[in-house]
Amino acid sequence: MPSVSRKGLSMPQSPIRKLVPFAENAKKKGAKVIHLNIGQPDIKTPQLALDAVKNNNLSVLEYSRTEGSESFREKVAGYYAKHQINITASEIIVTTGGSEALSFAMGSIADNDDEIIIPEPFYANYNGFATANGVKVVPVVSKIEDNFSLPPIEDFEKLITPRTKAILICNPGNPTGYLYSKEEIKKLASIVKKHDLFLIADEVYREFTYDDKEHYSILQEETLDQHAIIIDSVSKRYSMCGARIGFLVTKNQDVIATALKFGQARLSPPTYAQIAVEAALDTPQSYFDDVKTEYLQRRNILIAELEKIDGIKVAKPQGAFYCIVELPIADADDFAQWLLEDFRVDNETVMVAPAGGFYATPGLGKNQIRIAYVLDQDSLKRAVHILGEALKSYIG
Amino acid sequence: MPSVSRKGLSMPQSPIRKLVPFAENAKKKGAKVIHLNIGQPDIKTPQLALDAVKNNNLSVLEYSRTEGSESFREKVAGYYAKHQINITASEIIVTTGGSEALSFAMGSIADNDDEIIIPEPFYANYNGFATANGVKVVPVVSKIEDNFSLPPIEDFEKLITPRTKAILICNPGNPTGYLYSKEEIKKLASIVKKHDLFLIADEVYREFTYDDKEHYSILQEETLDQHAIIIDSVSKRYSMCGARIGFLVTKNQDVIATALKFGQARLSPPTYAQIAVEAALDTPQSYFDDVKTEYLQRRNILIAELEKIDGIKVAKPQGAFYCIVELPIADADDFAQWLLEDFRVDNETVMVAPAGGFYATPGLGKNQIRIAYVLDQDSLKRAVHILGEALKSYIG
Repeated sequence: MPSVSRKGLSMPQSPIRKLVPFAENAKKKGAKVIHLNIGQPDIKTPQLALDAVKNNNLSVLEYSRTEGSESFREKVAGYYAKHQINITASEIIVTTGGSEALSFAMGSIADNDDEIIIPEPFYANYNGFATANGVKVVPVVSKIEDNFSLPPIEDFEKLITPRTKAILICNPGNPTGYLYSKEEIKKLASIVKKHDLFLIADEVYREFTYDDKEHYSILQEETLDQHAIIIDSVSKRYSMCGARIGFLVTKNQDVIATALKFGQARLSPPTYAQIAVEAALDTPQSYFDDVKTEYLQRRNILIAELEKIDGIKVAKPQGAFYCIVELPIADADDFAQWLLEDFRVDNETVMVAPAGGFYATPGLGKNQIRIAYVLDQDSLKRAVHILGEALKSYIG
Repeated sequence: MPSVSRKGLSMPQSPIRKLVPFAENAKKKGAKVIHLNIGQPDIKTPQLALDAVKNNNLSVLEYSRTEGSESFREKVAGYYAKHQINITASEIIVTTGGSEALSFAMGSIADNDDEIIIPEPFYANYNGFATANGVKVVPVVSKIEDNFSLPPIEDFEKLITPRTKAILICNPGNPTGYLYSKEEIKKLASIVKKHDLFLIADEVYREFTYDDKEHYSILQEETLDQHAIIIDSVSKRYSMCGARIGFLVTKNQDVIATALKFGQARLSPPTYAQIAVEAALDTPQSYFDDVKTEYLQRRNILIAELEKIDGIKVAKPQGAFYCIVELPIADADDFAQWLLEDFRVDNETVMVAPAGGFYATPGLGKNQIRIAYVLDQDSLKRAVHILGEALKSYIG
């Protein structure tokens, strides 16, 4: 029997996947499971996007253009202009989700065994795309004590080798909720210019910033023109995760030309989804204002309730809709499984994402979990109450 | 300025892409261009699939399950059962097009610098997926004189090395239109079993077979259970290329588990498209009968008209909707460009795909073109007439 590849064997499993059977089993037994583990928002998709698809009049569902149509990309450029990011249609490639944008970016700039430095904890799937592309993730530790702010530049410089091709950040961060300041972006700009690296920023949570903080994009930093690659996605912005539409954005035309070749191989991004997104780009500001207000309230409730629990540490997020919580336990994987298997309050339990999978350094994050606050406020309150009771019982 | 990867530089350009500006220019100057170059059928998508999307009642466009929902995959298994392929839902992963299925398959079975043997000419994008995955394509020549039938097994065996992981075929073939016989599949079965290789078959044109010939799938060959991986797509079957839905199908559960990890990294295939495809699976047989009758007539007209042209060689296709034509010229790239730039009949010209891009062996196919007969019969007749006149003028 032929065997699978070493690469395939080393592809990471989703940190949540192994818990899924336990969640399913809990539900089978009649328990209610509150999902703090996934970034699937409950927010309604903008009606104008849903309507555009319902009212489409295609008779042949054809391929689209590999990079997305000119008119679509021009409209996308208009979206960026509103966010002080000045780009043209020819600097955008429409991709099948931010996932594909990241995969194209890695393939376009890195060869087998090349290295990309990423502050950890980071979005777990970066590991998957790196493995699939033969790229080595080199983590630089950011700490919950520092609210997961940018590690000192010296820490990055220590890790740079002749094989280093890029620094990759997620801003605002999944799973940390940390929002990099303009000053931090400038620090990153100086290091990538000094060492001739790319700076890749996953900015899919651009709109989700709190406490009057503003997002500062790497493409607002003009000296980065040839270095900056933005990974973007409509999934969270318009609550349309199932569309699978993202963007690779860069002013570096060599990268555009190269990523386009990866795009040509897979022909085109999904057509229906592009119809939805083209309409979604007209979503009024009031939609985002409402969504942001809702998430802000959720964050405030979540943090206030968490802070009532003894012995935990939490980094208050200023963006996105995740936070990392450090628990007074040794093994969050075991705790998460135990919650699903053995613990109930009024026949209800919670599912959390153990944070170990968001770190590349072995052993780090073992006592941390990631919470996604994409649920209504009542559920969030109940969930944190259950978590608090569970900790007492688990430790005791 | 940081530079792109060697991998990116070696990613092949689409064989058609460089002609696109010449086609656009011809149209700008008012000429009509008949497109023989692309596999985008003009056939109407089944109405029930279009309606399912128009009538959807989603309010949040959510992620789907990574591998597609259980119920969807069960329905897909039902489709295969009708084609004498006995598989279960757990042997199917829903992918973003056949493209992604192939990419997952390559990543799951081959490491950097591993080799996959492919009869050439082959679908040009196999090169792209191989390059992106660090896999080396090893071509085995099939000949227009033999109608592109399976090369002798000895030719394969000569090419097998310790790094060979699989043989990849496209059946019926793009760009050849060749349909492998049961005997040929059995020959391939014996060689992959003898050398412990995978046999990957791109069967996206399964329904498109002519002259009462029947498609024989690699998964009908029971001894191949642990070796066979089918790459599939709904793009051509239901004329829904823009859906971007495909399937990776195998009874080898190690491959399923590995491909699933690649799938988890990119989260899920597009949701709207899955709604369309789930409905499309109920397409009545009469739709396929009509489509097949139409393509058969197109093929017959195309071949009859081509055979009137002096000095050309054509392999009569028994499946799919492509054929390779050998022309009495030295350089099909130059000829294709000249057609768009300089040649008109009644202000009309044709765009063809030069076949060099479908070969991995340098120099092969330089005097061949691929024709996709996805146009109405009148256009096909005019196109072949223009081709004939053009050859006279080009040679003369």
